[in-house]
Amino acid sequence: MITDKLDLLYEGKAKRIYKTNEPNILLVSYKDSATAFNGVKKEEITGKGRLNNEISTLIFEKLTANNIENHFVKRLSETEQLVKKVTIIPLEVVVRNVVAGSLSKRLGIEEGTEIKETLVEFYYKDDALGDPLITEDHIALLNLATKEQGETLKTLAKQVNEVLKAHFLSCDVRLIDFKLEFGVTEEGNIILADEVSPDTCRLWDIKTNEKFDKDVFRRGIGSLTDAYEEILTRLGGQS
Amino acid sequence: MITDKLDLLYEGKAKRIYKTNEPNILLVSYKDSATAFNGVKKEEITGKGRLNNEISTLIFEKLTANNIENHFVKRLSETEQLVKKVTIIPLEVVVRNVVAGSLSKRLGIEEGTEIKETLVEFYYKDDALGDPLITEDHIALLNLATKEQGETLKTLAKQVNEVLKAHFLSCDVRLIDFKLEFGVTEEGNIILADEVSPDTCRLWDIKTNEKFDKDVFRRGIGSLTDAYEEILTRLGGQS
Repeated sequence: MITDKLDLLYEGKAKRIYKTNEPNILLVSYKDSATAFNGVKKEEITGKGRLNNEISTLIFEKLTANNIENHFVKRLSETEQLVKKVTIIPLEVVVRNVVAGSLSKRLGIEEGTEIKETLVEFYYKDDALGDPLITEDHIALLNLATKEQGETLKTLAKQVNEVLKAHFLSCDVRLIDFKLEFGVTEEGNIILADEVSPDTCRLWDIKTNEKFDKDVFRRGIGSLTDAYEEILTRLGGQS
Repeated sequence: MITDKLDLLYEGKAKRIYKTNEPNILLVSYKDSATAFNGVKKEEITGKGRLNNEISTLIFEKLTANNIENHFVKRLSETEQLVKKVTIIPLEVVVRNVVAGSLSKRLGIEEGTEIKETLVEFYYKDDALGDPLITEDHIALLNLATKEQGETLKTLAKQVNEVLKAHFLSCDVRLIDFKLEFGVTEEGNIILADEVSPDTCRLWDIKTNEKFDKDVFRRGIGSLTDAYEEILTRLGGQS
């Protein structure tokens, strides 16, 4: 049994990652911090860590059940989960079904516009550069991934989208867009990593388009925990 | 003989386009205006229009001699040329051999870094949006071009690069990067349009890396006309 929480390995905006007594397993502890606009807007929100840990757990389990390999090992506590150790590829892989957020601003297309052919975008994970949108040629130039790995990321991202879009739909939620991060295992396989939660997805009510995601915090349009609780409940989790 | 300059059809930052008595032929008149940063920096520079008309003429002639179809018909006067009428595709197609300018800032790579595999980028021509970088999927979403047309643009842009890189090299000039615009003819063919000049290319001296392009104006590091005269002279034109 792996339960030993050892050295803090990394602290991000929303999570802390710890070593465990098992070299290939890490412990992820979800924090109660909410941040937006590259850390410019910040707040402590009690309960957020638990909600994201529970939601991420349910989603990773759903993906595993659908044969999409990911780093999730098991839920450990209300705010903690164990994951496989991988080398994170410094790319945010964004999948979009409906125009929203930065895409709406970039292209001047109204938020809510349906996208016929699922869009996959790559952003370079670099806070100092503001996580810029990059092309597949830029990825090669920066040596972030080979062309082949880039294609694999796109394929995997679209597979994740198919599973999650259908799953959220069955919970009366529209999956608007989401951000994924991938990692490379010791064996050299690319698998899904990081988290999948209302911090990293845009989730709208199927009928009213009410937002149940971090835009509630970004835009100051309601209670983040109410929104996340709604998602947890709809996914069948215990609120 | 087509020489009638009729109605002004369009006025851009650096050129005016007029109708002629021939429906498929337009007259381009190069202006003495220099602008940068989406029009924020502006100046009238006597002689600039002539220099760009002469340089663009020489370059279009070079491309034609190398079987690269383009809209150039003939030089008409010191500041004017006739071109075929095309429907401009609202994309800036940027070709890069060496990291400079916005790419250096976007990716955090030092200006001057060689790019192994020629990079082609697309920017959406929209002043209100600040001409954003877009991906091939965005092009499809915006209905700017089909996937096939996108591939054609990339192929043509690389062909232009091969011809111009070699030609400038023979004039002791490094072709760092450049911006192209393409148009669709009445017959539905995609051909090179707009201009190719030190306004749209980065051109550095082969030995000293001295800049002979619009960066001289953007960065306020010398006389624009001296730099452009140098390019005209090296290309064999009359200064």
